[in-house]
Amino acid sequence: MENEGIRTIKTIAIIGLGVVGGSYAQAIRLSCGHRYKIIGIDTDELTLKKAKQLGWIDQGYKDGKEVLPQADLVIFSLYPVMIKTFILDHLSYFKEGALLTDATGVKKPCMEEVLPILPSHVDFVFGHPMAGREKSGIDYASAQVFQGANYLITPTPLNKKENIDFIESFMRSLGFGRVTQTTIDFHDEIISFTSQLTHAIAVSLINSDREGRETVRFIGDSYRDLTRIANINEKLWSELFIENAPNLLQSIEAFEKELTLMKAAIANKDKTSLEKRFVEAGKRRVALEEADYSLKYKD
Amino acid sequence: MENEGIRTIKTIAIIGLGVVGGSYAQAIRLSCGHRYKIIGIDTDELTLKKAKQLGWIDQGYKDGKEVLPQADLVIFSLYPVMIKTFILDHLSYFKEGALLTDATGVKKPCMEEVLPILPSHVDFVFGHPMAGREKSGIDYASAQVFQGANYLITPTPLNKKENIDFIESFMRSLGFGRVTQTTIDFHDEIISFTSQLTHAIAVSLINSDREGRETVRFIGDSYRDLTRIANINEKLWSELFIENAPNLLQSIEAFEKELTLMKAAIANKDKTSLEKRFVEAGKRRVALEEADYSLKYKD
Repeated sequence: MENEGIRTIKTIAIIGLGVVGGSYAQAIRLSCGHRYKIIGIDTDELTLKKAKQLGWIDQGYKDGKEVLPQADLVIFSLYPVMIKTFILDHLSYFKEGALLTDATGVKKPCMEEVLPILPSHVDFVFGHPMAGREKSGIDYASAQVFQGANYLITPTPLNKKENIDFIESFMRSLGFGRVTQTTIDFHDEIISFTSQLTHAIAVSLINSDREGRETVRFIGDSYRDLTRIANINEKLWSELFIENAPNLLQSIEAFEKELTLMKAAIANKDKTSLEKRFVEAGKRRVALEEADYSLKYKD
Repeated sequence: MENEGIRTIKTIAIIGLGVVGGSYAQAIRLSCGHRYKIIGIDTDELTLKKAKQLGWIDQGYKDGKEVLPQADLVIFSLYPVMIKTFILDHLSYFKEGALLTDATGVKKPCMEEVLPILPSHVDFVFGHPMAGREKSGIDYASAQVFQGANYLITPTPLNKKENIDFIESFMRSLGFGRVTQTTIDFHDEIISFTSQLTHAIAVSLINSDREGRETVRFIGDSYRDLTRIANINEKLWSELFIENAPNLLQSIEAFEKELTLMKAAIANKDKTSLEKRFVEAGKRRVALEEADYSLKYKD
């Protein structure tokens, strides 16, 4: 039953209780108490047990078929390639009018796989929480990572407005600071820059260290900061890199171009050119920080 | 007057009360109370006034000549190129047996400039606190940044053991976690990797952003982390980059090689090769974190 223009959600199923799914479960419980019944679906028995003991879910299931027909909202927090398979296996089990959403970091390949096989009685609003931890598994889940973070929605023409509105206000209620609607193509383009390029850099930086130097004695916070995300979930990120290959290659090349210009300035001992680059970077970073701060509290 | 093997330091002069000199003043006051008389020398009147009001220095001077003859320990926190000039201007003002030290981030050029002109009645123990803030000026000074940080010493054959020992225990007393002695060449080689390369990357990353994308709506902590140091002091860092040019160019090239291999893996959709790189990076990062943590509390 629905009020005018407002989705009534009673039961939420979270598919996959890893670091992202677990964080959702905790965030929903912390922000909404027992307003929703939270169901966790995960193939790992121990994960379900932990989620239950922590009070993050009301019920845990290894298979979705029994309980999916109750779920008004389904949150996929699976590896991107597994979402299509899950939907195909559960086509007739989704509740009439169910709202589905996801957390995948690259949108086009996932949406191109899912949209053609989506049953017509559900609505999939694709979402991307820009928060995460480097580690995987429920032990590293934490509602804290969502606080003030960006949340992105890539609507399709099929999405009902009330469902997009619900996801927006729901994500805000979990602590996200900014919710932005954008196109699929632009999402994947800019994410290749802000997210995949940064991980490519961190990995290449730490891998370019020569071994046997006892580097740890010679680091400051800059090296700590730039390598934090080098402790990367290899399965997830190799998938994201390959799915977003054309955009990512472009972003890497734009970055390499900047680095090449900087190398030339260093080799030529061109202090003026270096200073110009540093001043530009400083201006951009200050502007980013100010916009980040003010949007966090205004949006 | 000196005890056997232990330097007796009564008066400390800090030359330059910017972000590093100010942090030293505060750290000494916080850690050592009034055991030392702290003298600040800075050309900026307002800076001296602030340092005095904060209780970080006992006396402030715009010129060193009057007060330098009292100083047992002199800490240079000037731009690297200014140290030589200061010494030449004050050759006969240093106290007999005075211990001098610095905070410059690249050692060879500075030491090659300073050592030949150093008066024989002083001992210069070159040091590098691996801590700092992106902003400059006394307003951003903070003793906090030294806590647990690395400190590097590049001894010369001229240094007296008691002076090296003093700097070591003095820096530990200010909160530094690890003090490491190393050669000048190795210092500049590895610092080009851990410190200058990271800044070159951060600057090139943020400068490679295409303008007009409202990037702030599409960032997570990875982009925040990797660009934090892009807000860079252009005068200091262009100097450091140029002083350490050969090492820095090598470090950039080793990094670019890794990035090129990664690009090939992405273009070939070679999941196995990507995963291998990610696993290696993760192993290195975990090892770094563990060594960083354990050395911080054991050394």
